[in-house]
Amino acid sequence: MNASPTRTVFFLSDGTGITAETLGASLLTQFDGVDFKKITLPFINTVEKARSTVEYIDFIASSGLRPMVFSTTVNEEVRAILRTSKALFADLFDTYIHAIESELGLKSTHAQGRAHGAHDQRRYNARIDAMNFAMEHDDGQSTRDMSAAQVILIAPSRCGKTPTTLYLALQHGIFATNFPITEDDLEQQKLPKSLDGLADRCFGFTSDPERLHQVRNERRPGSKYASLAQCSFELREAERLYQRHNIPYVSTATRSIEEIAAVVIQEKELQR
Amino acid sequence: MNASPTRTVFFLSDGTGITAETLGASLLTQFDGVDFKKITLPFINTVEKARSTVEYIDFIASSGLRPMVFSTTVNEEVRAILRTSKALFADLFDTYIHAIESELGLKSTHAQGRAHGAHDQRRYNARIDAMNFAMEHDDGQSTRDMSAAQVILIAPSRCGKTPTTLYLALQHGIFATNFPITEDDLEQQKLPKSLDGLADRCFGFTSDPERLHQVRNERRPGSKYASLAQCSFELREAERLYQRHNIPYVSTATRSIEEIAAVVIQEKELQR
Repeated sequence: MNASPTRTVFFLSDGTGITAETLGASLLTQFDGVDFKKITLPFINTVEKARSTVEYIDFIASSGLRPMVFSTTVNEEVRAILRTSKALFADLFDTYIHAIESELGLKSTHAQGRAHGAHDQRRYNARIDAMNFAMEHDDGQSTRDMSAAQVILIAPSRCGKTPTTLYLALQHGIFATNFPITEDDLEQQKLPKSLDGLADRCFGFTSDPERLHQVRNERRPGSKYASLAQCSFELREAERLYQRHNIPYVSTATRSIEEIAAVVIQEKELQR
Repeated sequence: MNASPTRTVFFLSDGTGITAETLGASLLTQFDGVDFKKITLPFINTVEKARSTVEYIDFIASSGLRPMVFSTTVNEEVRAILRTSKALFADLFDTYIHAIESELGLKSTHAQGRAHGAHDQRRYNARIDAMNFAMEHDDGQSTRDMSAAQVILIAPSRCGKTPTTLYLALQHGIFATNFPITEDDLEQQKLPKSLDGLADRCFGFTSDPERLHQVRNERRPGSKYASLAQCSFELREAERLYQRHNIPYVSTATRSIEEIAAVVIQEKELQR
């Protein structure tokens, strides 16, 4: 069987390119068996940069399949140039901005770089503060100010507490932290002492014994800690602990960090 | 002056809602002076959930301004129900999927939850590994395996090294780390000893003296460390150090984490 020819996909923006990538990537996940080559070109904020971008796209177009372009370019002059490329061209603002303008009865501001820029200082500071809080408290390192946490993730080791905590902090500015559950806690079916009075902030993670065994085995191959028996025991007892203390929980075994975070935000009704 | 009435905006998805939020939020940044109330409803993956979502939207519609809906719903049955709501309805798949299908000569798979799901195990593992690497090495805590880093961010304290490192790791699975530049390094105009032979991995941050002074002062008010004179000195000497060692650098003073990350990826041509 021959390899399928490569289809080049460009994500263009006068800002970071994050919106264009997110938009395009979501659509492309719907097509299997195509070999996409993805190129992000951020900060196309001048007519000159737009022209050289079109030259680049047209060069690719001349030597293979027609490229696809996902664009989020606020400046109309820049966008008009990009639109002349020999690619399938989809721009978020071209598509939707007029409908929203007429719904709101307002003209759009055409301000560049707003979507992922620094103009919202309050949100920026919230994210940095949340990140510092998460780093300081990770895995129960510090119990100072635990009551400042909007949510405390609890779970046996290696169920995804740390990545989810950092994601909640960095992406959403949520004050999140996490705390390990030890074998003692499990045997006594008690929450860790440092969480006294904070059960309503807690959210539990569980996993699949096979999956946890695999993850722990990569870290400490052949250890009791990584054994299937130990993983089964900890997860079973952790679930019992959550139920006993009315702590909502979710299995992280087949979920992405983004999915786990979305479940936590929804279940705990966290304000971002 | 009366407050403007609130316009409710829904982000709907059968997955996490991240794409719908990104799409909608980018468009809404183009409209100033409107009081948007944003509601994300993820995991709408059944006909029943779609129906109760429409009831909720129509309830809001009946008591105020017409809501706006940004949706990324793969399931056509679910989408058809959502489309009946009394809102301005914009769905990413409605808009673009037919053009892409005909460009590629393929039908879309209609697989739900792909955009931010866990089906790409390789990417998931890369992000976790990158995050662990970033946490272990943050701020020069460990110099083990430094050569595994794709990029090493260097800067005086409080220029944004840690949030950018964690963002590069969590968002893009990039092996990033960071290393502080001390006053000794600045006075000798030498790179830290642990970075011997790694200058080509380095990327420098600088800032604005006033901004750095403000940030440090929040942490250690009135200290020499936070003084404007000290901040000016460190930034000036850091820039001289970067130039001397041919290390590319950027000012983080007015940039968001996303913008800084996009500059680093572009300048260092980092593979994600």
